[in-house]
This record gives sequence, C-alpha cells and structure tokens, in this order.
Amino acid sequence: MKSIAVLLSGCGVFDGTEVHEAVLTLLALARAGVKYQCFAPNIEQMHVVNHLTGEVANDEKRNVLVESARIARGEVLNAVSLDITQFDALIVPGGFGAAKNLSNFATNGSDCSISPIVETFLREFALANKPVGYMCIAPMMLPLIYPNAKGTIGTDSETGHIFNEMGGKHFSASVVDIVVDENNKVVTTPAYMLANNIAEANEGIEKLVNKVIEMID
Amino acid sequence: MKSIAVLLSGCGVFDGTEVHEAVLTLLALARAGVKYQCFAPNIEQMHVVNHLTGEVANDEKRNVLVESARIARGEVLNAVSLDITQFDALIVPGGFGAAKNLSNFATNGSDCSISPIVETFLREFALANKPVGYMCIAPMMLPLIYPNAKGTIGTDSETGHIFNEMGGKHFSASVVDIVVDENNKVVTTPAYMLANNIAEANEGIEKLVNKVIEMID
Repeated sequence: MKSIAVLLSGCGVFDGTEVHEAVLTLLALARAGVKYQCFAPNIEQMHVVNHLTGEVANDEKRNVLVESARIARGEVLNAVSLDITQFDALIVPGGFGAAKNLSNFATNGSDCSISPIVETFLREFALANKPVGYMCIAPMMLPLIYPNAKGTIGTDSETGHIFNEMGGKHFSASVVDIVVDENNKVVTTPAYMLANNIAEANEGIEKLVNKVIEMID
Repeated sequence: MKSIAVLLSGCGVFDGTEVHEAVLTLLALARAGVKYQCFAPNIEQMHVVNHLTGEVANDEKRNVLVESARIARGEVLNAVSLDITQFDALIVPGGFGAAKNLSNFATNGSDCSISPIVETFLREFALANKPVGYMCIAPMMLPLIYPNAKGTIGTDSETGHIFNEMGGKHFSASVVDIVVDENNKVVTTPAYMLANNIAEANEGIEKLVNKVIEMID
C-alpha cells in the first residue's frame, strides 16, 4: 500500500493550514486507497489570528504541532520524526501557515527562508526524487528547494513574478487545474488562492492528489 | 437557490466541531449547488483540549464562535442573528463540541440540557417543520427538541439506551447509512462515532446532506 506524508502548519487559513485544503487532501488520499500520515513542526506559530475579526491576538501563543492535531484528530507526528524511507510522496496544503510557520514568505517575500526543521523534511523528498504536491501559497517554497522549479500559485501576476525572481518558473493556472513539473516530480494547484467555493477547491486538490499518487514509482 | 444553515461548536473533535465532518458537510452542500451559512454561539468553550496529548489545557480559554471561524474561513455568524425565514434547512455536524458547548451531554448524560441560545435556534427549525440533519454525537440533543425523535448515534448500545431514556427511539446504523425520521424531518448518520477513516465518514455525510436537501418543500 502506498504511503504519503502530509505536512500541516497549524489549523486555520490566516495563521495555519487552510482547513478545507487539508481535509480535502485527506479525503482524496483515503478515497484513492492510500495510507497517509500527518506531520507538523513542533514550533510556536508566528502569531495567532482571530479568524472572526481577522485581527492578531497579541496575548495568545499557540504551537503548530498541537494546533495541527485538530485537523488530524490527534494523529499527527512531530516533523523531526519523519523517516523518509517510510513514505512514497509528500503533500503540503496551503493557508498562511505555509508562509508564516513553515517559511517566512509572508514577511520576507522573495528573501524568505524555510524553517530549518521543515527545510530538512522538504529537501529529503527532493533529493530522493519522490513526488510531491504543494497547493495554494505553499508553492512559494519550491524555488528554495528545487532547481528551476515549475509551479503555480494561480493567476496573481505579482506573486508569480516573485516566484520567478526566486528562481522558479511560474505558470498561470485556474483553480481546477494542476501544473506538473515532470523533472522535479512536483505538482501544484491554486486551491484557495483562487477558489470561490469549496467544491472548486476540491476539483484541483483531487487532481493534485491523484497525479502525485500516479507519479509514485 | 436553496439555503442551509450549518451550526458549528468550535474547531476540533475533542472540544469543538469535528473538523472533517464540518468540511465534508460544506463540500456536499456546495457540490449540490446549495448556498450555506455557518453559525455558532458566541459563548466560551466548556474547556480547551490539547488535541496532541488529549489533555485539558486548564490555563486556556477559547470562544466557540471565534474558533468556529477557523473552519468557516471567517464566514460564520453569531447564532443569535439567525433569521429562520432565510433558511430552508439546518445541519449540525458532530464532535465533542455538540456535547460540551451546544449542550452539556458530555457531563450530564440523560439529564443534559441544551445551551439556551442554541436551543432557541434548534426549536425554531423544529417548529417550522424544516428538515434538519444531525451527525455523530449531535443527535443526542434530538429527544430534547422533537417528540418521539427517531435517530442514530451508530451502534453503541449504551448511548442508544440513553437516547431512548431521553424519550427518543434509537436505531442502530452503520457509518455509511442514514436514519430518516419522516414525521420530524430529521436525518441522522453516525459519522465519526463509527468511521474508521475519512472516506467512510464522507459516505454517510453525503447521504445525509442530500437527503436533507431532498426533504426541503
């Protein structure tokens, strides 16, 4: 049975993993008969956002691994414990967590870096040439990991320009499309960078998951 | 276009709404071409559970409405603002939030009561004889609202017995089944009371959502 790691970054679109994207990823994996295991780094969130008001809750601190457990129903492991030999592929849902907790793209733009624990994790998959799927804003980490990374974050030309500035090659894509980088075995889809509703997001995510599974040797 | 209210109770299976059940409900509604609006009561959670360890975090307080916004991507309204004339039906996902925040079933068992704000909300749908769907542990509130409520919480005979003790009529059902109370227009499914994985949960939830939509006049 194929086994896929899913990297979470908290629980909530504004300070963690986009909840729908994560759940739809797990649904597509389960439907395809693939085993999955969620991982998250055991680090403090960049900040906590009140998702009702959109305001930062300055008096609150939350942990990425602990909050990710809400999406994973408790079944999430510390990212440092990942043994890459146990997994055939990796999927990274989006949400601001990818740009605030996994990396600092939200604050540093094209000068961003990836959190060291997470970078190790992501580089191992690249070095092993195992297929990966990144969605929403998560693909902004790809140029830091892959040579000449091809990918999409949707149709926003400014963000696409930054992707290119970082060394990648950006392709515009609609919410129901995927972009496939055959050399690097990287699949991307815009998800909630563009989705007007959850059914739209699901279309692209399902395609991404199925393509990642198909690319497993 | 049909319009359905979804009642949330936080964000996380152990102290709020079961995240998968909520997201799968929204997915099924969007796929059916139905408009939905999430609601939640503006009250403090009974407690906060660390979903990684399962332990209660005694030093933390969280608000049900604010945390529900994580599932709803910010698009959630205070339950007191619900105008029932604007909605054709109601769906209540499960998770311990239904038994800890919407009601006190988790602590009081058959002597439980429903939080007053929520009770108003739920009784209005019953009085209007508009179809409703309750899943997982949420059906334990039904005997307090509907006369001779028929429903399922799965196959656990002890919980089924309590449902009957409260005045309802419990029917055992598998995770992919729904139980329909035609008189009260109430649909129930066990979801994560029984689901071994998210694909199983999705089967019953999709049936529940589609049946609720079908029962709209």
